[in-house]
Amino acid sequence: MEGYKRFLSFLAFSTVFGFAAVLFVLVWVLLWREGLGWDGGAPEFNWHPVLAVSGFIFIQGIAIIVYRLPWTWRCSKRLMKCIHAGLNTVAFILMSISLVAVFDFHNAKNIPNMYSLHSWIGLAAVILYSLQLFIGFLVYLLPFSPAFLRSALLPVHTYSGILIFGTVIAAALMGITEKLIFSLKAASGIIPYSKSPPEAIFVNTLGVLIFLFGAFIFWMVTRPEWKRPPEQDFMTQQSAGKKPDVTEDESTATDHSMDDLSDVELHSEMSARKQNQKLDEAGQRSTM
Amino acid sequence: MEGYKRFLSFLAFSTVFGFAAVLFVLVWVLLWREGLGWDGGAPEFNWHPVLAVSGFIFIQGIAIIVYRLPWTWRCSKRLMKCIHAGLNTVAFILMSISLVAVFDFHNAKNIPNMYSLHSWIGLAAVILYSLQLFIGFLVYLLPFSPAFLRSALLPVHTYSGILIFGTVIAAALMGITEKLIFSLKAASGIIPYSKSPPEAIFVNTLGVLIFLFGAFIFWMVTRPEWKRPPEQDFMTQQSAGKKPDVTEDESTATDHSMDDLSDVELHSEMSARKQNQKLDEAGQRSTM
Repeated sequence: MEGYKRFLSFLAFSTVFGFAAVLFVLVWVLLWREGLGWDGGAPEFNWHPVLAVSGFIFIQGIAIIVYRLPWTWRCSKRLMKCIHAGLNTVAFILMSISLVAVFDFHNAKNIPNMYSLHSWIGLAAVILYSLQLFIGFLVYLLPFSPAFLRSALLPVHTYSGILIFGTVIAAALMGITEKLIFSLKAASGIIPYSKSPPEAIFVNTLGVLIFLFGAFIFWMVTRPEWKRPPEQDFMTQQSAGKKPDVTEDESTATDHSMDDLSDVELHSEMSARKQNQKLDEAGQRSTM
Repeated sequence: MEGYKRFLSFLAFSTVFGFAAVLFVLVWVLLWREGLGWDGGAPEFNWHPVLAVSGFIFIQGIAIIVYRLPWTWRCSKRLMKCIHAGLNTVAFILMSISLVAVFDFHNAKNIPNMYSLHSWIGLAAVILYSLQLFIGFLVYLLPFSPAFLRSALLPVHTYSGILIFGTVIAAALMGITEKLIFSLKAASGIIPYSKSPPEAIFVNTLGVLIFLFGAFIFWMVTRPEWKRPPEQDFMTQQSAGKKPDVTEDESTATDHSMDDLSDVELHSEMSARKQNQKLDEAGQRSTM
């Protein structure tokens, strides 16, 4: 199946770029920046880029596309929601440790906190991410929220997810820029950033890998043909072929399925188009 | 009409953030960075941020959402395509001048070119943008390309457009970071970036404005209910009410309408969902 193979190749590329980024950030701090430690010095700071790239970028990226992995479509939607939320929680925890590391480092060295644009955008991303996680948990994982709320919030949840992911990538690229300028200053024994020493080329490449990972994830998550199919339809199709191996969890999971909401979204797109066509003509003309 | 009012308020907010960003970048270079000029010095460099923000960010953002302005739906699709392409061409020209300014400045000051991650990502965005413009012109403005090509390329064109816009914003935030670090170094009479002088706060705020502009444009361009309706449907609706004022241009424009393609995209989403449901179950299980 061509679409399936294309999905797999995109997945392979994004995973390779993501893993390479994690590897590159580790090599960077281990080879050029005094390694890892928890001593208030450079080794403690180094947890900041390492955990940001591995947790806040790589794991968040995987969490974003986890519903789209076709071999998970037989798993219940509830299980997939737990995996989605779980991966995002892990990413959030790693990012929180990463923030502690950089604040600790700044405080130990008497460097002010939160003065740079990187810190403003980065902290905004962390706060938005924690809100997204909390609201997502309340609305989509707990069984109390009404269907209309789940439906109404889904476009916002999806939009925020992609926006936050993009913001985190932008913040990482700004962080790399900052760190290379601060570390590779013209001084005795140091080739400055502007002379492109091997570390500069290597870490710029890390930035490109992060960008490519983000670009591939963004493509994968915005393809309508790669959306997880609505659960009840998939189960109908299964039962038409082979008797499905449905557990109690799977059969009840459809009640609160976000897939139902994806359908709502699709239908709302069609009705919205019809509504648009009925847009008050006078209103349009008055603004021409 | 609630959707229409909501669209207008999003448009108002994005325009305010965009205009404010252009104003802020002008105030920055005029008040703190020796103004504007073309002398190989700082005033020439200053065209780089000014034209990048006003052209490559603000005008590109408007070009992205221009199809969605409801009062343009009575205009022919061909006219709107020309406006979309025209705005993007203006943005490209301003960005090219902005690049000449920074290369000139570097060469005059013997600063190497293309060493920073900002320059790598920024130049990649400019190259991708020129390709997008060229391919878009060939495929959607010239009458020679077949319908299947227009249809097949539309998801890629839309995706690339949003990706490039996001990349340009990330590059701008990196550029601001670089410039503030370089300009606000600890020296006699200069309060360093880390001590948050007024310029630092002001230019960080410029970064936040650029981010907000991007976030609002991203929301507006991804709402299915704000999509320009297919031309022939809109004209049918018009003729049901008042006899439409259709020019020759408008009536022929539907032949090559991207709206038709938007419909193709919507239908392909529905058929893709059906295809997904028929996904070879064995194939999925083998990868579980």
